[in-house]
Amino acid sequence: MSDAYELYYWPSIQGRGEFIRLVLEDADQAYVDVVRRPEAEGGGIPALRRMLDEVPRAFAPPVLKHGTLTVRQTTDICAYLAERHGLMPNVPDARRAANHLAATMYDFAVEIHNVHHPLGVALYYEDQKTEARRAAAAFAEHRLPKFLGFFERCIERNTTQPWLLGDRLSYPDLWLFQIIEGLHYALPKTMAAGRNDYPSVARAHEAVRTRPRLASYLASERRLPFNEHGLFRHYPELDVGGKG
Amino acid sequence: MSDAYELYYWPSIQGRGEFIRLVLEDADQAYVDVVRRPEAEGGGIPALRRMLDEVPRAFAPPVLKHGTLTVRQTTDICAYLAERHGLMPNVPDARRAANHLAATMYDFAVEIHNVHHPLGVALYYEDQKTEARRAAAAFAEHRLPKFLGFFERCIERNTTQPWLLGDRLSYPDLWLFQIIEGLHYALPKTMAAGRNDYPSVARAHEAVRTRPRLASYLASERRLPFNEHGLFRHYPELDVGGKG
Repeated sequence: MSDAYELYYWPSIQGRGEFIRLVLEDADQAYVDVVRRPEAEGGGIPALRRMLDEVPRAFAPPVLKHGTLTVRQTTDICAYLAERHGLMPNVPDARRAANHLAATMYDFAVEIHNVHHPLGVALYYEDQKTEARRAAAAFAEHRLPKFLGFFERCIERNTTQPWLLGDRLSYPDLWLFQIIEGLHYALPKTMAAGRNDYPSVARAHEAVRTRPRLASYLASERRLPFNEHGLFRHYPELDVGGKG
Repeated sequence: MSDAYELYYWPSIQGRGEFIRLVLEDADQAYVDVVRRPEAEGGGIPALRRMLDEVPRAFAPPVLKHGTLTVRQTTDICAYLAERHGLMPNVPDARRAANHLAATMYDFAVEIHNVHHPLGVALYYEDQKTEARRAAAAFAEHRLPKFLGFFERCIERNTTQPWLLGDRLSYPDLWLFQIIEGLHYALPKTMAAGRNDYPSVARAHEAVRTRPRLASYLASERRLPFNEHGLFRHYPELDVGGKG
């Protein structure tokens, strides 16, 4: 039994798996990104399918294996890792707040995904482009400011540090970093238009980006590039710019 | 400080709050459904707005107050209550599985909601009816069988009891009950067409429905009726019937 974490996730996208990778990388933990390994070495999509068949009650990736333990669902996996590696606040109420913030960002990520797939994941983007344009306009006008404004106020409350909670980074700060990074990739004009509305969020994003381990990870080949198969997709026609 | 739980949620819909109410009711716990009380007695929408202003980092209802403690997010609130009142499995791995199943049902509920609001919650249903019909067809053909088939297999694994996990009911069983109940309300023809495909799910649903406290709750005025403002809405034009 190896001590290393085994992450099972789609091999060619950041997707939901990236929230987990960021926690592992910032915590400096060894992990195997199983499905990204060659098939000949036990990786590839066959490894993913085998895992989904073998693990009881695994609905979909990501799944984390740690020794004999299996953890499912992005938020639960991140909370499990954060708990073990100093990325969870110590105070019970702040721990609950951390999980709440991650869950809220998870909701936000689902809404971001729905902008390019409003009719559901069963249809291609090309088959819902018109609908996606309307969804993108409503998102930019209503939902983006609601979520970003909420996170802005959370960080503003913290008078000494650029973090969401308390005096050191906790795992929701990594989530927020990834979401802001993804939004800048997917909706550069829209994000540029709101540049001055969320100064605390921008500071937090920069503070995460320049953490040595994170910076090293982001510059490495382990960090997959954003692309049009993941959560954050850059379709210029959906990047509607202004604030409605 | 009162010992009773205070639930803050929209007063006229089951919505996400209903998952919490079912846990409280099945556990026979006293609770105040604060916003449903008259304004003169400290209830109503003003009470909800006050709470959202006062509670740090409350993004949206539901919120549960318990003495000095505040718990946010539907899944976290249910897990908190389940832990305290015998609706969480005892084994760590099964607890993780319970939270995973609830999180998967939460994802499912979000997808069910998106069927009638594919372009987002910022627009009325009337402004996205055409899109909703396409979303409903894709949902009935792909997503409904994927999720229900998954829960069916989970219960099938349990050779002695109709529950998702182990030999007694845990809180995800209440979630599944509510989802099936809601789907029957929202999509009666579609659900009738798949009636024989999920026998274990149907048995589990019936086993929950006939639990004495639950049956008494469901027959009471505390149980709000389904309506076209909540998560599960009956729009006949979205009830596409067959399995595609």
